[in-house]
Amino acid sequence: MVATAFHGEPEGTREELMHATYRALCEHGYADLTIERIGREFDKSVSLVYHHYDGKDELLVDFLGFLLEDFETAFAVEDGEDPRERLREALARVRSGPLDADDEGFASALTELRVQAVHDPAYREQFARTDRLFRERFAGIVRAGIDQGVFRDVDPEATADLLVTTINGAILQRVTTDRPVEPALEALEAAVRSWLLVDGVAES
Amino acid sequence: MVATAFHGEPEGTREELMHATYRALCEHGYADLTIERIGREFDKSVSLVYHHYDGKDELLVDFLGFLLEDFETAFAVEDGEDPRERLREALARVRSGPLDADDEGFASALTELRVQAVHDPAYREQFARTDRLFRERFAGIVRAGIDQGVFRDVDPEATADLLVTTINGAILQRVTTDRPVEPALEALEAAVRSWLLVDGVAES
Repeated sequence: MVATAFHGEPEGTREELMHATYRALCEHGYADLTIERIGREFDKSVSLVYHHYDGKDELLVDFLGFLLEDFETAFAVEDGEDPRERLREALARVRSGPLDADDEGFASALTELRVQAVHDPAYREQFARTDRLFRERFAGIVRAGIDQGVFRDVDPEATADLLVTTINGAILQRVTTDRPVEPALEALEAAVRSWLLVDGVAES
Repeated sequence: MVATAFHGEPEGTREELMHATYRALCEHGYADLTIERIGREFDKSVSLVYHHYDGKDELLVDFLGFLLEDFETAFAVEDGEDPRERLREALARVRSGPLDADDEGFASALTELRVQAVHDPAYREQFARTDRLFRERFAGIVRAGIDQGVFRDVDPEATADLLVTTINGAILQRVTTDRPVEPALEALEAAVRSWLLVDGVAES
């Protein structure tokens, strides 16, 4: 999911710059990232980067906005499908995206960016928006399941909050302790399904 | 829970230094913390700090070890009690500890320390040990519940992993997005209880 934005060929200068930022971030991490290093990954002149951004933080906040736009597409709501199936697919997409084992450099860098939000309101706003997007998408799935009578009448927002919180915790643990994320995510899915399904622990 | 270590009067030089580190960390955060600033909170000479530690990171890793010792006591296993009650109490202790609304400065600083673990093996080892302690305590409660026939035969380690992962995610979200932790933690408790309890969603 995270990575999808950077799979294809970039189109236009902004996308080229965002791909360059992604590569530089994966390679150097946040602390050692400089505009110069991003410039080295960028086919065009580094002065073009300075023309648009005052410093690396302004560029990185814009980069987070670019990621969010990608999430909005990748995590688009597909109405009509069985909500139990949609929930399973949404969790599978998280596992193959930000929690993909091949993308640890990026997960580490994203975590370092997230911690900038402790003191920097611009980062804070971006991560609050990203979390909100995922909460809304998960809450939409839960709400559809309740409407269709396949999920119990739980609080959709609280359920979505649990899902997003656990995913964020799994990313954090993975990059700070080497903890594999699968056991926690499998337990999350089992516990949430048990809580949601009107027929208890039975499969859909 | 986190805070209990710093509630009473410190006993001996090491505890005094740990309390001084706690106060300096809450006030300045990780990035602006210096041995001098810790020294200003410390009744004894700052040269005593330099005598024992090569720099702030060595002191902070020792500080994390001190916290872990405190968790080991505060989170001691109380055998004999009803596992359903023990699970509820353990989660309540987390809410009044690292997730206590009055302790946000410390939660922020701890999160900044945790992100040092992305690149620093000494921090990584400490946070891995802390997570492991909490996982073992939660798994012990789940195992007792299964043995006594009040919990379903789930994987105790995976359940504990879910609990610790969600708690870590809640701390992260709180200090990086202002997200209140209660909805996610209430959903966690409800989902885990629904998954564990042999009588489904009924209360103990």
